[in-house]
Amino acid sequence: MDGETQTGTNDYIVPEMMRAWVLGDPEELSFVEKPTPVPGAAEVLVRIDAIAVCATDLEIISNGPPALIEGGQPFNKNFTPGHEYMGTVVRLGAGVDEFEPGDRVTVEIHAGCGRCERCREGMYTACLNYGMNYGEKDKGHRANGFTTDGGFAEYAVNNINTLIKVPDEMSDEEATLVVTAGTAMYGLDVMGGLIAGEGVVVIGPGPIGLMGVAVAKALGAQPVILTGTRDGRLQKGLELGADHVVNVRNEDAVAAIDRITGGKGVQYVLECSGAPNAVNEAMRMVNRGGRICLAAFPSEPAPVDIAHVVRNNIYLFGIRGEGKSATHRAAAFMAQRRFDATVIHTHTFPLDEVPTALKYARERIEDAIKVVVKMTPDTTGS
Amino acid sequence: MDGETQTGTNDYIVPEMMRAWVLGDPEELSFVEKPTPVPGAAEVLVRIDAIAVCATDLEIISNGPPALIEGGQPFNKNFTPGHEYMGTVVRLGAGVDEFEPGDRVTVEIHAGCGRCERCREGMYTACLNYGMNYGEKDKGHRANGFTTDGGFAEYAVNNINTLIKVPDEMSDEEATLVVTAGTAMYGLDVMGGLIAGEGVVVIGPGPIGLMGVAVAKALGAQPVILTGTRDGRLQKGLELGADHVVNVRNEDAVAAIDRITGGKGVQYVLECSGAPNAVNEAMRMVNRGGRICLAAFPSEPAPVDIAHVVRNNIYLFGIRGEGKSATHRAAAFMAQRRFDATVIHTHTFPLDEVPTALKYARERIEDAIKVVVKMTPDTTGS
Amino acid sequence: MDGETQTGTNDYIVPEMMRAWVLGDPEELSFVEKPTPVPGAAEVLVRIDAIAVCATDLEIISNGPPALIEGGQPFNKNFTPGHEYMGTVVRLGAGVDEFEPGDRVTVEIHAGCGRCERCREGMYTACLNYGMNYGEKDKGHRANGFTTDGGFAEYAVNNINTLIKVPDEMSDEEATLVVTAGTAMYGLDVMGGLIAGEGVVVIGPGPIGLMGVAVAKALGAQPVILTGTRDGRLQKGLELGADHVVNVRNEDAVAAIDRITGGKGVQYVLECSGAPNAVNEAMRMVNRGGRICLAAFPSEPAPVDIAHVVRNNIYLFGIRGEGKSATHRAAAFMAQRRFDATVIHTHTFPLDEVPTALKYARERIEDAIKVVVKMTPDTTGS
Amino acid sequence: MDGETQTGTNDYIVPEMMRAWVLGDPEELSFVEKPTPVPGAAEVLVRIDAIAVCATDLEIISNGPPALIEGGQPFNKNFTPGHEYMGTVVRLGAGVDEFEPGDRVTVEIHAGCGRCERCREGMYTACLNYGMNYGEKDKGHRANGFTTDGGFAEYAVNNINTLIKVPDEMSDEEATLVVTAGTAMYGLDVMGGLIAGEGVVVIGPGPIGLMGVAVAKALGAQPVILTGTRDGRLQKGLELGADHVVNVRNEDAVAAIDRITGGKGVQYVLECSGAPNAVNEAMRMVNRGGRICLAAFPSEPAPVDIAHVVRNNIYLFGIRGEGKSATHRAAAFMAQRRFDATVIHTHTFPLDEVPTALKYARERIEDAIKVVVKMTPDTTGS
Repeated sequence: MDGETQTGTNDYIVPEMMRAWVLGDPEELSFVEKPTPVPGAAEVLVRIDAIAVCATDLEIISNGPPALIEGGQPFNKNFTPGHEYMGTVVRLGAGVDEFEPGDRVTVEIHAGCGRCERCREGMYTACLNYGMNYGEKDKGHRANGFTTDGGFAEYAVNNINTLIKVPDEMSDEEATLVVTAGTAMYGLDVMGGLIAGEGVVVIGPGPIGLMGVAVAKALGAQPVILTGTRDGRLQKGLELGADHVVNVRNEDAVAAIDRITGGKGVQYVLECSGAPNAVNEAMRMVNRGGRICLAAFPSEPAPVDIAHVVRNNIYLFGIRGEGKSATHRAAAFMAQRRFDATVIHTHTFPLDEVPTALKYARERIEDAIKVVVKMTPDTTGS
Repeated sequence: MDGETQTGTNDYIVPEMMRAWVLGDPEELSFVEKPTPVPGAAEVLVRIDAIAVCATDLEIISNGPPALIEGGQPFNKNFTPGHEYMGTVVRLGAGVDEFEPGDRVTVEIHAGCGRCERCREGMYTACLNYGMNYGEKDKGHRANGFTTDGGFAEYAVNNINTLIKVPDEMSDEEATLVVTAGTAMYGLDVMGGLIAGEGVVVIGPGPIGLMGVAVAKALGAQPVILTGTRDGRLQKGLELGADHVVNVRNEDAVAAIDRITGGKGVQYVLECSGAPNAVNEAMRMVNRGGRICLAAFPSEPAPVDIAHVVRNNIYLFGIRGEGKSATHRAAAFMAQRRFDATVIHTHTFPLDEVPTALKYARERIEDAIKVVVKMTPDTTGS
Repeated sequence: MDGETQTGTNDYIVPEMMRAWVLGDPEELSFVEKPTPVPGAAEVLVRIDAIAVCATDLEIISNGPPALIEGGQPFNKNFTPGHEYMGTVVRLGAGVDEFEPGDRVTVEIHAGCGRCERCREGMYTACLNYGMNYGEKDKGHRANGFTTDGGFAEYAVNNINTLIKVPDEMSDEEATLVVTAGTAMYGLDVMGGLIAGEGVVVIGPGPIGLMGVAVAKALGAQPVILTGTRDGRLQKGLELGADHVVNVRNEDAVAAIDRITGGKGVQYVLECSGAPNAVNEAMRMVNRGGRICLAAFPSEPAPVDIAHVVRNNIYLFGIRGEGKSATHRAAAFMAQRRFDATVIHTHTFPLDEVPTALKYARERIEDAIKVVVKMTPDTTGS
Repeated sequence: MDGETQTGTNDYIVPEMMRAWVLGDPEELSFVEKPTPVPGAAEVLVRIDAIAVCATDLEIISNGPPALIEGGQPFNKNFTPGHEYMGTVVRLGAGVDEFEPGDRVTVEIHAGCGRCERCREGMYTACLNYGMNYGEKDKGHRANGFTTDGGFAEYAVNNINTLIKVPDEMSDEEATLVVTAGTAMYGLDVMGGLIAGEGVVVIGPGPIGLMGVAVAKALGAQPVILTGTRDGRLQKGLELGADHVVNVRNEDAVAAIDRITGGKGVQYVLECSGAPNAVNEAMRMVNRGGRICLAAFPSEPAPVDIAHVVRNNIYLFGIRGEGKSATHRAAAFMAQRRFDATVIHTHTFPLDEVPTALKYARERIEDAIKVVVKMTPDTTGS
């Protein structure tokens, strides 16, 4: 029955088979035909219209999903990566009336199990059953593109908890950036969230850092200071609202914050660089009682001046993902055009060129920041 | 007029001069006569009846007050150290009716400036004007025994914010331990405080760690697990309510928590050891989304597995002191006899033997935990 | 196949049909045979061993479930009421390994939908899909005994989110009281939860109020004051830890609090009486900035002195049920024997005498407080 | 020395005597000469440049300061009312280096005592020593224009906690509106503060309500809905960012919210009308688990549907004033020109016409909203 005819405005043709990129051994991506998935209770089928490449995608494709429990997870073969996608609702699972076919949606990643201690307190991105979505042990956790099929494909199934409606005025490309902005907002939220008039330093002008600048400014932070090593990226920060940028190749980062704030330091640091010394620098950028959100990390343990943390009553918040419905709040700011997230979108490729898109992102070819894969009419078949 | 006669029950004789230990160059303590201080507005004069020795006292006497702003503070000569004291109110400053002469009181350390951003939000132990109590720059901050005169003396002046009433049933010696229990409670508070039925690990059976065991159990935590290297200290932990103790000379600490909790880990760790690897161990004791309070620190920067913090949404809270009125809550538990803090009190000396008391504490002679200096009638002169 | 033989220790005989009380028209309860329910994913089948009668049961049997959305819900025919039950896990639904057959469990009421804004932030007792558990519109919400089948029966199906393990040492009767204590604890939690040494007034010595006294004292509140009209109930409050009780037939409640606290008032009031003037009295018992939890309510709108609320920065928290996993915390206190909840258990009847049990509870025959229905071996058939 | 010569840029002439309006019996305002006050420790002298009239000023002049403790405070004779002022720092008290002469500042009202339980936790607007600023009992509380001399004068003394710097670009008139915006922001803060993308209803388009619209929108709330009875005021709401306005003379307020939100209701209501039925309407505008801030109140107790509050897990937050440094956050938004507060400024008068200014405000002559008294050069004498 599916895939036959389109009888009404929102009566979508859904083919039984779809095209998707599937990961085999590390780095082995194949473009295959596979069955279009079917949404279950509390799920919908999304026709993917665009998807952005995240640095974590590159990591997953090379090394497997982040080993949340060290040593606990094998390399995840035979699944479709990609998690920063948006599209159109085309089928509803049982009991779903929160969405209708035809709704444009963007996604967040984590659907918690709903039954562990963390989910019960609303911390669904820290679900204790992360990755428990196989066979007998299926606890209901979903992290599309991490542990369940993601978006480098024509269709994906999403739990309704992971969907945010996209207004007509927002382009497909911009909508893929919502979850990045949502991660930055989550970082600001866990530090307290009431930041109007407070100083915020963002370390590292990657996509999350740049969105952190934009969201902090939207919330009224003052000054918002961005530090990094590349002038092109720092320039993007200025476009997104940074009051000051510091190229740490030219000036010591801590000294610069000291200079800009007249010796007072800031209240909040959002660390998005993963540089080995970033935590130590962050703790010297904040004043006593300051707060630091860690959204990135070095690959190896790095020396940390714990004494300074304790003596100065500093709080450090590690975050993973986009919890506390922060993506909805970020989407609201974007829908209200408080900032133009598209300044970080630099390149676009069609679905059959995913390997090229990944290569641009990985090697930062032509100063790529956000590379988007955009379905074309003949790609999506609709 | 002072010091002459006692005309009523609570009309105390206060001599014009008192005996006090004064710190000169590092390690140079002298027992001198100096003027009895006079309380100002919002202050009282406390006749000191007992004072416990804290490891930080030893640090201050050797190296000066903790360099809260690195390099910012010179060695603090010519002041009286000691901050864990209790006594009797004998004089009221202007405007004080919260206390009366004769009230038995114990103290907390920090009186914030009341005018900085941190004090305005109630984080007075992280006062931005810490140490600003000299001459023209007096912002009102007081940290008796750290930056202002403390309790190795016959009398001390205290801001009323630093006083807690002591019930008749509580001994002088026990009352000196309230601030230690208050620090432990603050540590549990900053992690959220609602811990009944939740697992808590305390690393390090020093005084704060042992009080952490007692307070966590009073709040209903289950299991409460104490780790350390000395069986005698661990035994004290059992007396104070620990459900399990782990001697890390015999068993890997992380493996032990894994064993005791059936692989689930705990929600909270209170790190009181300052061991270089304690933070890394703590982050493997907590489950995803877990919280760690750092109440101690190694002297040098230590390698920290920041990636594990970020991937597991872990929060780290550095604390200094006994904020958020936690001392009042700890005192309430002690007044209700929820635990017997005196099990950590091991030795007592008179005021003129402060150097011996310090030596016992420093060298842990006879397994000393808390060494108390107790005024005797002829010592206090009352 | 079910119900044939018991082949192992925890291999329970589950009959295909069970006995259950079913509500027809208002007040019409029938004791019938009906099919034993089958647990689905994330559910277990509980053999009910005991169930307490709650005042809300009486309300549901007479008038239907509380009209959470006014006018929205018809009288709920043909279901089994009763929500304060405990029992033994006898069957596991798909994917459940959190429990095993043979586990003794007690229940909380609410299993949120997991997909609305409130559930996503952890406020599952305020689920926006409350009552949406019928056919096409099944959103997954369950409130056993309110909108789905409850516990006046031999068996019930429970979402694992609603289960708490019961230690061997706790009797069946005591275990039925956990959810009542959990509701009281939730009330204290929403007001902030850090109440050691703070004054708490509980208005109304019904079951929730009496458990409120016990939990407040377990958390270290001081003084805990209970007000009511019947000396027998107030006496129970003293047994559960109240420092003071006030019979408001003899003394004005506000004046009494003023007297007991030396004019200072308390920080927190837990209002459990539903008396029309209770809110006005509560706001005069708390000091400025005080907090009031409303766990009961009068049947009609009552005059409230809103000006006093605003001028004094008072917060009022309406609560329904036992959110934030408070039941787990209450169960932990009970397992640790911090208080003896059984002092409120006054009467016991077998399953076939549910109408008598309800009559005792409704008419408070022989000063009934908590009436428990206890299955007997021949009743449960095991 | 004072008042003689101006020797440098910021060396202000301060006369020994100043002109000020002084309240005698109710409604009796006199324009007198009185000594210019002298700032103490942690205080500065502010030359008043502009002051707005607040409805509470009218109340104070007619009836005395709000009886925070009913019956506790006599009519406050012989003081200078007025609390929404701004000006220029001209003298520093002891220990002040946070400000310099010449700084333009606006004020908030409350300087807490710093020694009560509320101040210690950062709730300084709910200071337990409110009004304790007389003679022997001076606890340090200051509420200029309420219990201590305010701003209908040439000069006033302010605790530095009550000062916010004003950027050069902001006019004197606009700066007087900061504390009004700060009160609105405090209301949003106490409800949680993270409101981007959430629905907010503001009831009552008075100055606080209109600023509530502006601040809610600045924080990203969506939709922001303003209800009221006068189209002119509602029009101002639209100018300040309201997405919808409802004239409740034309449409039932609750029905309108239902219509606008598609039956979902909103998460937050900021009640600024004081209408007797406003609380009942607010609780039907929010969805289950919603939050209501009460910033206004009817003069008499009004019937409240407490059952609806309890059944729907609604929280009600009474606020007085501008706590939690919300004024600083509001000022930051205004400095960043997120909204144009001056749309509520309608009239201006000189200092000697204060009675006319009050009359315009009281009688809403010419649709007056905010009436500002502006010092002229010859008025201020500088």
